[in-house]
Amino acid sequence: MTDQAIDLRGVFPPIPTPFDGSGNVAYEALAENLARWNEHGLSGYVVLGSNGEAGYLSEWEKLRVLETARAAIPAGKLLIAGTGCESTRQTLLLTRQAAQAGADAALIVTPHYYNTKMTSDALVRHYQAIADDSPIPVIVYNVPKFTHVDIEVSAIVRAAQHPNIAGIKDTAGNIVKLADTVRQAPAHFQVLAGSAGFLFPALMVGAVGGILALANVAPRQSIAVYDLFKAGRYAQAADLQRRMIPVNAAVTARFDIAGLKATLDLLGYYGGPVRPPLLDLTDAECQALKAIMVEGGIL
Amino acid sequence: MTDQAIDLRGVFPPIPTPFDGSGNVAYEALAENLARWNEHGLSGYVVLGSNGEAGYLSEWEKLRVLETARAAIPAGKLLIAGTGCESTRQTLLLTRQAAQAGADAALIVTPHYYNTKMTSDALVRHYQAIADDSPIPVIVYNVPKFTHVDIEVSAIVRAAQHPNIAGIKDTAGNIVKLADTVRQAPAHFQVLAGSAGFLFPALMVGAVGGILALANVAPRQSIAVYDLFKAGRYAQAADLQRRMIPVNAAVTARFDIAGLKATLDLLGYYGGPVRPPLLDLTDAECQALKAIMVEGGIL
Amino acid sequence: MTDQAIDLRGVFPPIPTPFDGSGNVAYEALAENLARWNEHGLSGYVVLGSNGEAGYLSEWEKLRVLETARAAIPAGKLLIAGTGCESTRQTLLLTRQAAQAGADAALIVTPHYYNTKMTSDALVRHYQAIADDSPIPVIVYNVPKFTHVDIEVSAIVRAAQHPNIAGIKDTAGNIVKLADTVRQAPAHFQVLAGSAGFLFPALMVGAVGGILALANVAPRQSIAVYDLFKAGRYAQAADLQRRMIPVNAAVTARFDIAGLKATLDLLGYYGGPVRPPLLDLTDAECQALKAIMVEGGIL
Amino acid sequence: MTDQAIDLRGVFPPIPTPFDGSGNVAYEALAENLARWNEHGLSGYVVLGSNGEAGYLSEWEKLRVLETARAAIPAGKLLIAGTGCESTRQTLLLTRQAAQAGADAALIVTPHYYNTKMTSDALVRHYQAIADDSPIPVIVYNVPKFTHVDIEVSAIVRAAQHPNIAGIKDTAGNIVKLADTVRQAPAHFQVLAGSAGFLFPALMVGAVGGILALANVAPRQSIAVYDLFKAGRYAQAADLQRRMIPVNAAVTARFDIAGLKATLDLLGYYGGPVRPPLLDLTDAECQALKAIMVEGGIL
Repeated sequence: MTDQAIDLRGVFPPIPTPFDGSGNVAYEALAENLARWNEHGLSGYVVLGSNGEAGYLSEWEKLRVLETARAAIPAGKLLIAGTGCESTRQTLLLTRQAAQAGADAALIVTPHYYNTKMTSDALVRHYQAIADDSPIPVIVYNVPKFTHVDIEVSAIVRAAQHPNIAGIKDTAGNIVKLADTVRQAPAHFQVLAGSAGFLFPALMVGAVGGILALANVAPRQSIAVYDLFKAGRYAQAADLQRRMIPVNAAVTARFDIAGLKATLDLLGYYGGPVRPPLLDLTDAECQALKAIMVEGGIL
Repeated sequence: MTDQAIDLRGVFPPIPTPFDGSGNVAYEALAENLARWNEHGLSGYVVLGSNGEAGYLSEWEKLRVLETARAAIPAGKLLIAGTGCESTRQTLLLTRQAAQAGADAALIVTPHYYNTKMTSDALVRHYQAIADDSPIPVIVYNVPKFTHVDIEVSAIVRAAQHPNIAGIKDTAGNIVKLADTVRQAPAHFQVLAGSAGFLFPALMVGAVGGILALANVAPRQSIAVYDLFKAGRYAQAADLQRRMIPVNAAVTARFDIAGLKATLDLLGYYGGPVRPPLLDLTDAECQALKAIMVEGGIL
Repeated sequence: MTDQAIDLRGVFPPIPTPFDGSGNVAYEALAENLARWNEHGLSGYVVLGSNGEAGYLSEWEKLRVLETARAAIPAGKLLIAGTGCESTRQTLLLTRQAAQAGADAALIVTPHYYNTKMTSDALVRHYQAIADDSPIPVIVYNVPKFTHVDIEVSAIVRAAQHPNIAGIKDTAGNIVKLADTVRQAPAHFQVLAGSAGFLFPALMVGAVGGILALANVAPRQSIAVYDLFKAGRYAQAADLQRRMIPVNAAVTARFDIAGLKATLDLLGYYGGPVRPPLLDLTDAECQALKAIMVEGGIL
Repeated sequence: MTDQAIDLRGVFPPIPTPFDGSGNVAYEALAENLARWNEHGLSGYVVLGSNGEAGYLSEWEKLRVLETARAAIPAGKLLIAGTGCESTRQTLLLTRQAAQAGADAALIVTPHYYNTKMTSDALVRHYQAIADDSPIPVIVYNVPKFTHVDIEVSAIVRAAQHPNIAGIKDTAGNIVKLADTVRQAPAHFQVLAGSAGFLFPALMVGAVGGILALANVAPRQSIAVYDLFKAGRYAQAADLQRRMIPVNAAVTARFDIAGLKATLDLLGYYGGPVRPPLLDLTDAECQALKAIMVEGGIL
């Protein structure tokens, strides 16, 4: 268990895992992407999240990705590792390994395959068991669009009592739930917006930052929303927030990881292909994506 | 069609329809409730909305409820009438009748029974046909928890081009969608938060007010969130907003109309019974409700 | 309350309500359609069901439709009237009126607008209250695709104890639920398949017949599935059942009421337009529909 | 690719994976359970399915479970291995390993984490790629209650053209879909009911057998439904089918894997604990389960 608090304020991109033309992990491309992202004022990175196609990697690949990322991330920026598995047992194991590989915190998705059995009790016990054992702080990851599990505020608040459970990334965008979590959770527990679409309103109701797919391709604008909020320039923050909506939708709901990678390619980062069964964008989709990015001032 | 803009800023309660012990509409109680609400700085009232059990009233009852309300509402406050029916034809008819009864605007729920056929095209044509014909401005009412139809931003924006479509009440609380509607709709189109749970963040992204069940039982606090926002006192607005969450949940999702009516009874208004098949609260539910209201400072 | 059992065996089409070019009910066309359907061995008709656009009709239109239908339906065939409204009060009233107009039974959809409050208790009380009062037998109508309420088997079984609740039309097609209802309900309670897609398997687990949109356009084939089942010719019944699937899908999920009416037009019945906000088929949709009907041997 | 057809007729239990008190796989208990099941006329076993908590096992555990099972299963009975992973790449690898361990076929769940991207195209390519590469026949596994992906009939039919795709286990119980799959798929493609709740109606519309959780605890009754169907004794099959519904519900939807294991313990098999985050039954749940099993004639 950790002795001191981790600081989750600011903006974190959940980075994609680059693959080469044969579908193998492109470790060097990963390091090079990170070197470029490091030039921005990002607070750190989420590695092996949903955008990292984590569920498509072998355990061995996961650990090597973490080691590669750690070597490329300077000490002042956090490496948050996605280590959630379906079973408590495997999550414990992977979290310990991630900590050894240098991760600063573990982002742990709600187990979900047996979704009707993932009651509040089951989820709270899961997070408590991991937090008891983990050498690094634990962040709850709630992403109902993928898991079809939407952890209740009362369960979040119960888990949040644990000193080694540092916060939550909530991707659902239910602003009432975010506000209610802030209201009820203990002070050490930090709420992170899980998508750029609602970063500004989340900050207004008490979130401390965001883990944002958009920050991969628009780190400057993502950080600007945060900085305008911190400076009390709310009208400008709201305006920039609104302008980012179509761009963000393009790299999340509409084109998702394939769209994120295609945008990175357009920006001169390494994007590359997704792993099947995910499909790369068609040419028509690429054109539509490009138009949105030009319109949104990203390209 | 109307010549001048309607001003939807501020807070509107969607008032319940009072029934007596035999299940008949208690028209006098309605007038007396309105007399008390008139003492607060509410911008007006929604009559015959979901909270008004509108679907449980005969056409004749609806019109008499509107006439009773109009007589009890001073000129400076808006009477917004819920006139949405499943068919365009019946909605046209009821909207004309509501205008004759003195309604200032019509709140029109998305048709929904044949939900898979309620495409954007079908919905836009419906609203355009009504707006063409209606003597009073039309407000779109999106309430997926009841309708299982969630009108898309692109459809809202198409409908919003009509000069007689004045705004939308959105109850879903998808803050990204609210912000995107503000971004894309023409200037005359006004966005209203459909629940007190997200009034403050909605205002922050450009909503002009709210139609809030909570405003029936906590008009002072509901207006205070709005006024704090207008005064730029955001931290206090956010704090009050957060404190209203459990109270609001009690009179919406958890206990719904029966809870709203029971709270009105506790406050000295006329609440009374709901119409079956809705069920009144059990004694245990009443006690739970009362405890929440005391805790939230409403009682 | 009724003294003797009603016999729901066999096949019933839920007939559409014809409208003229101005959107008014075409009462003569209704009578003429019925005269043609009467030539087949149908057990009766459902009038004012979902396929009858019942929610789009005024109360006055509903009663005149029932009177017109009664005059056109011979004594040996049942007239089942859709009389379900959102409130118990209005359902009671309309059911009495339907009985006066000559209906033999009332098909009553589960109330659904306040769907989270439509608990088993609320639904059972609703049906019991109506059955206590109704001069004609009551049939429960479960159609989750429209109502988003799916009445539980335990609630069905409780309601089925009432001697004036004669059966259920279940459109969901959950064959386990149908079988379990047959297992637990009293002997007088009759289960009807709500779609031709699963008529044969429903009969195999104990249903007594079906209320089938398909029977409007393919009465002969619909009855043949039933007759083959009764004759114990299961392989042929299963084969005909399977061949009817694409035809049935065309007049239900895919093209729905507009498709049903277009098919009637193609067959020489009066189909005519749907009422807005429903949309009539486009030319391309008409062509696709026609191809399916030719392929399926209906045209 | 395989040269000759596999025969999937009959009843297969998807067996649970036994764990000891420390949560380790109890390999001997697995072998002993199989020895007892072998006494019944089961056509084979599914190992590492959803009921096997496959997602909770490490790769190494999976392979050892398969080897243990193979050693305990006589040559005349099929060993069907669950080898579906989220990525095509990992599924290919695990399927090859399962074949080496002696599996006769691979049951491959639809990938689902990125569910909105699991289009028909993505799924068909996934199954085709695996079928091209797999040394053993592939069975599609559709289980929307866990995956929230419901593969369309048109996609099933496209995949079914591949000679190495032998069939589908469908757990959704949509009898229309099962019938339509039988109608459209090529002759070598075999449909299996995925739950005992609808085994008999599935057989009536053309399924060849079932993979049934119930067959773990009631192999005799499960096989009896199948045998009565084969003998043309439909009324008795339907009756037994109906009587199995509550028993089946207890070991699936209601108590799921923990209930299945508790029932095995009651029957003298080795059930044992589930792995967290799944929770074992409480004492009260055990009592309720036992009552259902006694009532259903299992105990």
